[in-house]
Amino acid sequence: MLIDHLSIIGVGLIGGSLARALRKAKLVNRVTGCNRNEDSLKKAIELDVIDDYSLNIHEAVSGADVVVIGTPLSTTEKLLPKIVDSLKAGAVLTDVGSAKGSVVDAAKRSMGDKFPYFVPGHPIAGTEQSGVEASFAELFINHRVILTPLPETDSKAHQLIIDMWQAVGADVINLDVKHHDDVLAATSHLPHMLAYALVDCLAGMQEREEIFKYAAGGFADFTRIASSSPEMWHDICFSNRDALLNSLDSFSQHINQIKNAIEKSDSQQLLTIFKRAKNARDKFSESRNKSAISNE
Amino acid sequence: MLIDHLSIIGVGLIGGSLARALRKAKLVNRVTGCNRNEDSLKKAIELDVIDDYSLNIHEAVSGADVVVIGTPLSTTEKLLPKIVDSLKAGAVLTDVGSAKGSVVDAAKRSMGDKFPYFVPGHPIAGTEQSGVEASFAELFINHRVILTPLPETDSKAHQLIIDMWQAVGADVINLDVKHHDDVLAATSHLPHMLAYALVDCLAGMQEREEIFKYAAGGFADFTRIASSSPEMWHDICFSNRDALLNSLDSFSQHINQIKNAIEKSDSQQLLTIFKRAKNARDKFSESRNKSAISNE
Repeated sequence: MLIDHLSIIGVGLIGGSLARALRKAKLVNRVTGCNRNEDSLKKAIELDVIDDYSLNIHEAVSGADVVVIGTPLSTTEKLLPKIVDSLKAGAVLTDVGSAKGSVVDAAKRSMGDKFPYFVPGHPIAGTEQSGVEASFAELFINHRVILTPLPETDSKAHQLIIDMWQAVGADVINLDVKHHDDVLAATSHLPHMLAYALVDCLAGMQEREEIFKYAAGGFADFTRIASSSPEMWHDICFSNRDALLNSLDSFSQHINQIKNAIEKSDSQQLLTIFKRAKNARDKFSESRNKSAISNE
Repeated sequence: MLIDHLSIIGVGLIGGSLARALRKAKLVNRVTGCNRNEDSLKKAIELDVIDDYSLNIHEAVSGADVVVIGTPLSTTEKLLPKIVDSLKAGAVLTDVGSAKGSVVDAAKRSMGDKFPYFVPGHPIAGTEQSGVEASFAELFINHRVILTPLPETDSKAHQLIIDMWQAVGADVINLDVKHHDDVLAATSHLPHMLAYALVDCLAGMQEREEIFKYAAGGFADFTRIASSSPEMWHDICFSNRDALLNSLDSFSQHINQIKNAIEKSDSQQLLTIFKRAKNARDKFSESRNKSAISNE
């Protein structure tokens, strides 16, 4: 048995899918859930995602060998100081937040000598759906999970979280905290901002009815991520504020280069940008196709 | 027989797919191709896409009942004045360009009393591939084709082009020229600029190797369109210059609202934007799911 008693704080898409996968693989004896909303916990029992639940977070984590916090980032940062005294000695704590610097700071400030048992994590998996109803055991198969252990992190705790994610089919990678946040700002947080801004821009146009009516397949792909949870993305923006603002500035420079080339009828410059981008995107496709691991 | 002799100028993905579909449905007697590059025409013969070809554009269009110009926009605008004298009386001419104002202007200037036989068209279909090798008969099934006939357009010519596209499975819609260009600037041309700018931005970053390595599925969807033909998009930018520049300005305002909200820690404003965008995107998905016609 990999984990005797697992506690999941925030039994939603990610937490619920992890619980399902570990139970399916018979790698956990008991899963306790904790949410603010009792209905979702009853639903989680009904769907056989968890064994039991508590609305009291102290009760929910006490006795657990591994605690996974699956809440949005601002909640995670608030919960860390609250639960630290209720964790049993040696219990391993991990999270699933899309930005790591702010969570690591919160943990460092509040966890004292339990800080080595916190293993910051970020499964790069999900759909635009949320909630335990959307969870499924196969969510992490062939998806990357990035862990950002610190020099202080206990090596056994780190290994246990690696084992846990590998057991549910994930490809685990370790990255430095700042590196993680810079890379994710560029590849995930920035594109989400562009999708939200694009849809908001089009929805405000006079021709919005026709715009959405005549939009073709590429538009659907391009804006799908604007259906993601506003609350979750609100938290990510503030948790990864500096890296995201840098990415936004860099993007603005690039879109302005295109705009200027069109305004100045600079054919050569426009073609150069488009060719350079196509070349980079084609290489990205190639390297993904060659790789045995797919994140699609 | 819908069309006795069809001439396709630019036998690529679009022109080739149209020829394949019409031949498959036995709605055309003879298809003549014309490209600058003889190898691609030999390939088109080999793939049974066309019956014969000519490298001489005058020869290629003379005698044709319908001429489809499938070249990039700037080429189409240059070809119109060249071929007009070689068209036989009553021959119907159409194009497949993603912007219509500039082509219509070019046709008006050069076609004289043959202008009523020009039916401007835009099939909203395609892949990131190009060339006759990528063409296939099913490309247009359940895809929209927008026609932008003018008051001068001959009604029989218009009907023939409607019939041609419907025969290959498309859903044909008629729109005003300017309306088409505004709507397409917003839903297609702007997103392509964002994808090119995003990929160019990331490819220029120091961490570019990790960026492309750790990018997840959403990024692949979001940037796929940056693999499209640089030459084609270069032409679209200049052909639909004003509408595209307006869209770019409007987008910049919206992305700056998000940036300002993050900078000023304005939670409420950020949540409002994200919720408004999610709401619009969810409605778009619903209306697409309800519709019998899919553009995916």
